[in-house]
Amino acid sequence: MPPFIDRLQRYQKRVELALDARLPPARRTPARLHEAMRYVTLDGGKRVRASLVYASGEAVGAEDSALDTPACAVELIHAYSLVHDDLPSMDDDALRRGKPTCHFAFDEATALLAGDALQSLAFEILAEDRALTASAERRAQMITLLAQAAGSIGMAGGQAIDLASAGKVVTIEQLDEMYARKTGALIRASVLLGAYAQAGFGADIQQALEEYSRAVGLAFQITDDILDVEGNAETLGKNPGVDMARSKPTYPQLLGLSEAKVQAKRLHTQALESLAPLGDNGRTLAELAGFIIERRL
Amino acid sequence: MPPFIDRLQRYQKRVELALDARLPPARRTPARLHEAMRYVTLDGGKRVRASLVYASGEAVGAEDSALDTPACAVELIHAYSLVHDDLPSMDDDALRRGKPTCHFAFDEATALLAGDALQSLAFEILAEDRALTASAERRAQMITLLAQAAGSIGMAGGQAIDLASAGKVVTIEQLDEMYARKTGALIRASVLLGAYAQAGFGADIQQALEEYSRAVGLAFQITDDILDVEGNAETLGKNPGVDMARSKPTYPQLLGLSEAKVQAKRLHTQALESLAPLGDNGRTLAELAGFIIERRL
Repeated sequence: MPPFIDRLQRYQKRVELALDARLPPARRTPARLHEAMRYVTLDGGKRVRASLVYASGEAVGAEDSALDTPACAVELIHAYSLVHDDLPSMDDDALRRGKPTCHFAFDEATALLAGDALQSLAFEILAEDRALTASAERRAQMITLLAQAAGSIGMAGGQAIDLASAGKVVTIEQLDEMYARKTGALIRASVLLGAYAQAGFGADIQQALEEYSRAVGLAFQITDDILDVEGNAETLGKNPGVDMARSKPTYPQLLGLSEAKVQAKRLHTQALESLAPLGDNGRTLAELAGFIIERRL
Repeated sequence: MPPFIDRLQRYQKRVELALDARLPPARRTPARLHEAMRYVTLDGGKRVRASLVYASGEAVGAEDSALDTPACAVELIHAYSLVHDDLPSMDDDALRRGKPTCHFAFDEATALLAGDALQSLAFEILAEDRALTASAERRAQMITLLAQAAGSIGMAGGQAIDLASAGKVVTIEQLDEMYARKTGALIRASVLLGAYAQAGFGADIQQALEEYSRAVGLAFQITDDILDVEGNAETLGKNPGVDMARSKPTYPQLLGLSEAKVQAKRLHTQALESLAPLGDNGRTLAELAGFIIERRL
C-alpha cells in the first residue's frame, strides 16, 4: 500500500477530475453562474469529505469508480454550504481557502444562486449515477441520507443553531449537539455513502462506521476551534480569531485551550478503536482520522 | 365529475395536509428555522404546481396517494425559490402572498437557511417515499427530473439570466428562453412527475404532456407579466409594477399589452390542442390551463 499522503493526493486528484466532469462547462449559459459554481468547487480544499467516501468505500470493498459520484455529491453539498455561510447575512467572510469568497469574486445574487444550484446538482448526480454501479434502491438510500444530513435536522439546522448561539451562554452538551449537526452530519454522510456504494456489509461494520464518524466529526470541529485560536490566515485559508470576535461559543472558550486539545486526542483514540471490526481494511480511515484531527495542531 | 373549482380545492387541501405531515414540527429544534420553513410553505399560494402533479397523474391513471409526495416536492422547491428570490440581494421584496416575506417576518440568515433546507427536504421526501408506491427506479428518475428543473440549467439558471437582463435590451427569443428556465422548467417537472408516478404510459402521452407543459409554462409567465402591469397588490399578493420599476424585460414591454394577451391566448389554445391524445382524461389538465392562463385577466 502506498504511503498515506499518496493515497490522499490520489483521492484529491480523482474527485477534482470527477467534479470537473460533472459541473456544467463554464461557457454554458448562464456562464457567470457556471463560472461561480466552478470557482467555489474546483481547485481548493483538502477534500476531507470526498476522501472519507473513498476510504470508507474501499474499506468495505467498493471500486473507486463506484465512489466518484458520492464523493462529488458530498463535496458539492459542502461547497454550497460554504458559499452560503460566507454571505453577508451569515458569517460575512471575505476570504475562503485563501481566495476571495464567492460574493466578493462575483456578487451576492450569483453566490446565492450558485449555492442553490450546487445543492440541486448533488442530488441530480446521485439520482442519475452515470456509472450505473449502484442499484436505484441504494441510490435512493444515498439521497435520503445526504438530504437529511444537509437539511434542517442536519447541516442547515446546525447553522441556524450556530447563528442563534452567538453571544449566548451554552453548555458543552449544547455545543456538541450543534457541532453534530453543523459538521458531524455531513462527515457521517460521507463515511456512510462510501459504504452504501457497496452492498452487503454487516451490522458490525455499519456500527463501526457510525462510531468512527461521530468521533471524527466532533474532533474535526474542535480542531477548527483550536485553529481559530492558534492558526493564522495562511495555514487556515481564512481569517483566524473570527469565532472569538463574534462571541461564538467554542471548545477552547468553554474548556480552555489545553483541555480542548485533550478532548480532540480522546476522540482521535475513540475513532481508531471504533475501526477494530474492519481490521486492516480500516487503515486508510484510521490515517485519515489522524490527518483530520492532528492537521497543523 | 365535480366542478373544476371543487377539484382544484381538493388538490389544494390535499397538498396542504401532505406538506404539513412532511415538514418538521414547528417546535422541533431548531424551532425558528422550522417555523420559517412552515411559514413560507403552508397556508398560501394557489398550488398551481401541486395541482399540475395531481391532474397529470390522474390523467394517466395514478392514485392520489401516489401523487402526494411529488406534489409536495414541487411545492417545496417552489417555496424555497420564492424565499431566496425575495432576499435583498435578489428582488428585495417585502410582500409575498399578502404576507411579509420570510426575511421580514424572520431575518435574512433564517430565510437563507429555510430556503436551503426546503430544497433538501424536497429531495429527501422523493427519495424516501413513505407511501412506497413508486419503484426506486422511478423515484430516482423523478429526482433527476426535479433536480435538473431546479438547478443551473433550470430555475436557478433562469433567475441568473433574469438578474443579468435587468436594464438590457433582449429579444423575444431571449425572453422565451429565460422564462422556459425560470418558470417553465418547474411547470414541466410538475406535469411529468405526476405522470412518472404511474408506470406504462406511451410515448404519445409523454409528447402530449411535454407540449402541454411548454405552452402552459410560457403562458403562465406572460400572464404574470400582464398582471404586473394591470394587477393590484390585493389580487396579486405582491406589489405590482415592480418589473417595470426594475427595468426588467417583459412581454408587454417588448410586444405591447394587447399583443401579449394575444400570445397568452394562443398558448392557451396550443395547450388544449396538445392534450388530444389524452381524450377525456385530459379534462382537468385542460381546465387547469385555463385557470393558470386566464386567472384574473
